[in-house]
Amino acid sequence: MDLQVAIDRVTLERAVDLARQLDDQVDIIELGTSLIKDYGVLQIHQALPALRHAKLLLDIKTIDEGEYEFDKGFAAGDILTVMGAASRGTLEKVYALTQQRQKQMFIDMMEINDVKTGQIVDFPQAIYGIHHAKDAQTGFDAAATVAAFHHQYPGVQHISVAGGIDLAMAQKLAQQGIAESVIVGSAIVKTADPVATAQKFMEVMHS
Amino acid sequence: MDLQVAIDRVTLERAVDLARQLDDQVDIIELGTSLIKDYGVLQIHQALPALRHAKLLLDIKTIDEGEYEFDKGFAAGDILTVMGAASRGTLEKVYALTQQRQKQMFIDMMEINDVKTGQIVDFPQAIYGIHHAKDAQTGFDAAATVAAFHHQYPGVQHISVAGGIDLAMAQKLAQQGIAESVIVGSAIVKTADPVATAQKFMEVMHS
Repeated sequence: MDLQVAIDRVTLERAVDLARQLDDQVDIIELGTSLIKDYGVLQIHQALPALRHAKLLLDIKTIDEGEYEFDKGFAAGDILTVMGAASRGTLEKVYALTQQRQKQMFIDMMEINDVKTGQIVDFPQAIYGIHHAKDAQTGFDAAATVAAFHHQYPGVQHISVAGGIDLAMAQKLAQQGIAESVIVGSAIVKTADPVATAQKFMEVMHS
Repeated sequence: MDLQVAIDRVTLERAVDLARQLDDQVDIIELGTSLIKDYGVLQIHQALPALRHAKLLLDIKTIDEGEYEFDKGFAAGDILTVMGAASRGTLEKVYALTQQRQKQMFIDMMEINDVKTGQIVDFPQAIYGIHHAKDAQTGFDAAATVAAFHHQYPGVQHISVAGGIDLAMAQKLAQQGIAESVIVGSAIVKTADPVATAQKFMEVMHS
């Protein structure tokens, strides 16, 4: 199982510094929506032209204008996000462009119901991202949610999960063996030593 | 009826130039999502600190992290957009913040069904934005869509409409008297003389 570290709500300078530090330690580095909307993809690309080891995910949350946003986004990142709430047309367009560029597309499943979910689980190479909205107040059991999603949509091959994941939950998800990646934000980047914390996550996930 | 001109998919320099030219001519200047995601709100604010006459709408398309995005966005703009597809919690948070700042919130009604629409038409001061996704292929009759929306949700006081609106449709919408604002993009900004074209729109809307 891959570790994706989400960097969010910091200055671009701090984000670049964190990304460089974590590059060799983790599998995927995510620059969150706050960075996209505060600084823009062009400035991000200029400040962080390439990573050595990790893939770069830009959480651009496309909901329309799919081809435009993915075309621009793939100049900077390896994985881009699109909202499951986008139209079928948008999802199809960004999927085609993603396949053509041999990159990856991450579908953010936030706030979509079972009917809509059933209509969009047919993109075999897409990563399906399950998480709670940051604005949601209630609890979230990542392992239980992943198990339920897998039970309901057994055809989905690439599942990613986020939401308050600590060391114990990361280990549980790794042992469960369903999710392909787990996303950890502040539990890594808001600690005194993000690199050491990321290493701890990697250890429990691969033990 | 107000005229909102949408500037999209151009360089920030060109966007600022267009905004300055159109400032005295139109009611609202929109900087589209492409500008937000390409350049970021901070850079936009730096390049365009204030308009003389028009209100500035930033099409930030918030779908989560509502307070963060609206707090940052209102430093730069007068009107911010949130997706109707966002959670109820996000909509309530950004509405409260908008009221507190005495600014305006624009709910983008793209890709939400009647059930969800019925659940979110209770923000009296919000502007409800009806339009076709840019990725949608089929035709769009703005006046008919506005009439149908008004018939179904008569309590909604602030309606905005976008989607291939030309001079004839702008005039029709003004005469219809339901929509509070009409959004025109390339039919103004992609012409040889955007200022003269904007003036023509204003004339037919107020004749």
